[in-house]
Amino acid sequence: HSPLALIGGPCVIESEDFTLKMADEIKQVCDRLSIPFIFKSSFDKANRTSITSFRGQAIEDGLEILQKVKDKIGVPVLTDIHESSQAAIAAEVVDILQIPAFLCRQTDLLMAAAETGRTVNVKKGQFLAPWDMKNVVRKLETSGARNILLTERGTSFGYNALVVDFRALPQMREFGYPIVFDATHSVQMPGGQGDKSGGQRHFVPYLAKAAAAVGIDALFMEVHEDPDNAPSDGPNMIPLAQLEAVLKPILRVRDSLAGSD
Amino acid sequence: HSPLALIGGPCVIESEDFTLKMADEIKQVCDRLSIPFIFKSSFDKANRTSITSFRGQAIEDGLEILQKVKDKIGVPVLTDIHESSQAAIAAEVVDILQIPAFLCRQTDLLMAAAETGRTVNVKKGQFLAPWDMKNVVRKLETSGARNILLTERGTSFGYNALVVDFRALPQMREFGYPIVFDATHSVQMPGGQGDKSGGQRHFVPYLAKAAAAVGIDALFMEVHEDPDNAPSDGPNMIPLAQLEAVLKPILRVRDSLAGSD
Amino acid sequence: HSPLALIGGPCVIESEDFTLKMADEIKQVCDRLSIPFIFKSSFDKANRTSITSFRGQAIEDGLEILQKVKDKIGVPVLTDIHESSQAAIAAEVVDILQIPAFLCRQTDLLMAAAETGRTVNVKKGQFLAPWDMKNVVRKLETSGARNILLTERGTSFGYNALVVDFRALPQMREFGYPIVFDATHSVQMPGGQGDKSGGQRHFVPYLAKAAAAVGIDALFMEVHEDPDNAPSDGPNMIPLAQLEAVLKPILRVRDSLAGSD
Amino acid sequence: HSPLALIGGPCVIESEDFTLKMADEIKQVCDRLSIPFIFKSSFDKANRTSITSFRGQAIEDGLEILQKVKDKIGVPVLTDIHESSQAAIAAEVVDILQIPAFLCRQTDLLMAAAETGRTVNVKKGQFLAPWDMKNVVRKLETSGARNILLTERGTSFGYNALVVDFRALPQMREFGYPIVFDATHSVQMPGGQGDKSGGQRHFVPYLAKAAAAVGIDALFMEVHEDPDNAPSDGPNMIPLAQLEAVLKPILRVRDSLAGSD
Repeated sequence: HSPLALIGGPCVIESEDFTLKMADEIKQVCDRLSIPFIFKSSFDKANRTSITSFRGQAIEDGLEILQKVKDKIGVPVLTDIHESSQAAIAAEVVDILQIPAFLCRQTDLLMAAAETGRTVNVKKGQFLAPWDMKNVVRKLETSGARNILLTERGTSFGYNALVVDFRALPQMREFGYPIVFDATHSVQMPGGQGDKSGGQRHFVPYLAKAAAAVGIDALFMEVHEDPDNAPSDGPNMIPLAQLEAVLKPILRVRDSLAGSD
Repeated sequence: HSPLALIGGPCVIESEDFTLKMADEIKQVCDRLSIPFIFKSSFDKANRTSITSFRGQAIEDGLEILQKVKDKIGVPVLTDIHESSQAAIAAEVVDILQIPAFLCRQTDLLMAAAETGRTVNVKKGQFLAPWDMKNVVRKLETSGARNILLTERGTSFGYNALVVDFRALPQMREFGYPIVFDATHSVQMPGGQGDKSGGQRHFVPYLAKAAAAVGIDALFMEVHEDPDNAPSDGPNMIPLAQLEAVLKPILRVRDSLAGSD
Repeated sequence: HSPLALIGGPCVIESEDFTLKMADEIKQVCDRLSIPFIFKSSFDKANRTSITSFRGQAIEDGLEILQKVKDKIGVPVLTDIHESSQAAIAAEVVDILQIPAFLCRQTDLLMAAAETGRTVNVKKGQFLAPWDMKNVVRKLETSGARNILLTERGTSFGYNALVVDFRALPQMREFGYPIVFDATHSVQMPGGQGDKSGGQRHFVPYLAKAAAAVGIDALFMEVHEDPDNAPSDGPNMIPLAQLEAVLKPILRVRDSLAGSD
Repeated sequence: HSPLALIGGPCVIESEDFTLKMADEIKQVCDRLSIPFIFKSSFDKANRTSITSFRGQAIEDGLEILQKVKDKIGVPVLTDIHESSQAAIAAEVVDILQIPAFLCRQTDLLMAAAETGRTVNVKKGQFLAPWDMKNVVRKLETSGARNILLTERGTSFGYNALVVDFRALPQMREFGYPIVFDATHSVQMPGGQGDKSGGQRHFVPYLAKAAAAVGIDALFMEVHEDPDNAPSDGPNMIPLAQLEAVLKPILRVRDSLAGSD
């Protein structure tokens, strides 16, 4: 019964100081709870709803900051890539390359990620059935990937809405790789505020506890010191000050099932 | 922190002997686990997929059997009604009148159930949003209902499929009444076998644990000695022999959250 | 190539004078366009969103008004029933008994309607696949129904929303009965205004033209002199003054396909 | 009342001879029907379900064949791009750059396409509401695009299924650009055959007639001499031999509405 890992951090790399501070603070929470921590932040938000939204840093600047997180805070880092040429560049720094949900069927991007030898985390597209992810897994395996993570982050449900089908967790687990539940994007309301996405932050603890009860290996949550003023994904990120209180019952649920199933 | 109640039993009343035996066996499981038990069985399956499906007993015969369950096994009983004229008749015997999901907006049926003074359990329609249930609650309250239960049993998701949106549980709880999760109908595949509904029994434990983690007051599960040969809902009912093993981790999840939230 | 029939009228029977006036006015439009007209109005709205919504007349009063529509305006009439005991009573007056979408799987109601010998129009449930309607058809046929109509009125699509899948029209036509498209309920937004349903009246002409292009036998549209002040379904009913202009292009589409297919 | 344009061709560029032959044959059909024709074929299928699926040609080889279609057959050509670096390369040959549905929110890809000065056709993502496309339009306009096409190709509806919401056509038209209906991808069943997508070719004529009735500027249909043996999208492509018979009633529907609306 391995401990639940947390993949977390602010949605997008804002400044070096802020990024290091967030990584340090979240690490302290995880240390107190004795759970592994992987820092997540995006150098570029390549698919923002609106063209005037903040996008982040140039890839070089973003990776430099992530390298400092590794060096100074001592935690592995994850970031997402959007075009196949970014895979090798990002792989020089990050421990886990993430494929965004919209791009989970782009064969070149998957192949480029797999060929780096880094762990690849693929988010299940909002338009895909859980069982369709076996074709994504095969694309990665055929291209040499050894370490794969599969993430649930909600499925299209009418317009501007997602629903989490928790049957997806055991279904994707059958492909033989660790399963991640992205609790903050699962409560997103895509495009729900006209020129930006809305979110339902108050449902994050409920869905995260449900995921722990169903069975996951890692929990993905975007965390920010001040979500309401964050440049991206504010409506669904968890405030840093609440992180420990949110995580505790999730871990209690997980511990209650240790040894079963 | 009150214990989780089980509402359970075979989908439809088959014979008196079988019904009494099932009620007795399930009660023994619940006694061992120290949880309250309400026996559920339908006298009539009024909305079967096909006209040639087994429908059950006449209402008088069905109620007579349920009365014997109360007398001999000593547990409260629940059954569902389909037309408003059945409310007063069923209320003479049963402790909880249940309104089927397809009928949850039928004003006359809700009013008739409320006017009996019995507890009324309404299943959320597959076509309704959680927040729409507040209008159902108001119809019942206006008609004098004091004790109301609200049950989640899945929402339409494309054709021949349901999905459970676990956000519905805290959303419906805001109306001030106990919340039930129907774990066996939530894995139904309506019409999924052409002239009968299919089901995914193996997902019941996952969804029931998720519901316990999110927070419910009672768990609804159809249980049968031999589901594969049952006249109704076989593909999603839980075999009696597995009931205790299915319930234990669900109760562990619930206990792990005692005192929190 | 038979002409397209219109099934139309105000959602609910308000007063005798108003009902007769509406039937007369709509008949004049249909006469000018040389299309058959069946008057539709409900004596009782048994599944309104809220208990405080206007419900209509007692069944006897409603049927008396419908009889006058037949006698004075000279058109066949249609109404919907909600409990099986209403079938025989309504069948004394109405030419077509309609089964509401939420109730399309209630076996007793279907049987009672079939046994009257009247034509039965069943609306496909928002929770049903088109192919599931073959079980509904079988229930009616087994109970003696000879004349059956099947109506498309939209399918659940996320919360508080419907979508019309136009593949349903040819799919249901394969069962061998005339197909109706309900253009005004198809643009309903169920529960979309909190304690009542919203609607998107401006999309009615688009969807009705699409239905005519795909192939239907009758068009169902609720029509009202003053929808914005109507007691039910105002947001999706067509204003009487626009009816002729709405119908003309629909008929042009139908005529363009005469002889094909 | 401009004529309906056809955007058509085999899903993927197979060989030069086959591609030229198909373009020539489809042009002859369009000439007989007096409608404009834009040849469509993909040099690369970058998001096939399975990694072992046929992907097509290298971009240079594919573009060389498309240039020959322009030169020898005398029709404009359209192809789709998948990474931003392909935009300028493809724009040297093709008249219309197409952004695939999965990629419709990738800001860099949209910007790169817009900056070429070519017409850009964006397919609405299966995960997007029609009104969300206004943000896509703004990204293109801000990047200098003058000529934009917006294409409906179905919306996620449960798993492995799409539904066409015909309200999307007038809703997207409000953004001020021509509207295309993709009749063959709209009947796709994504991932519906395990390691490839299924399709429902027999519904194409119904949905295309519906689109013509609702109002479109161009019809997009993949056409192949022998769909059942095609390397991609066989289950939903229209056989060349049926193209003229499929188009005629669609044009009759369109003509019937000339001058209205």
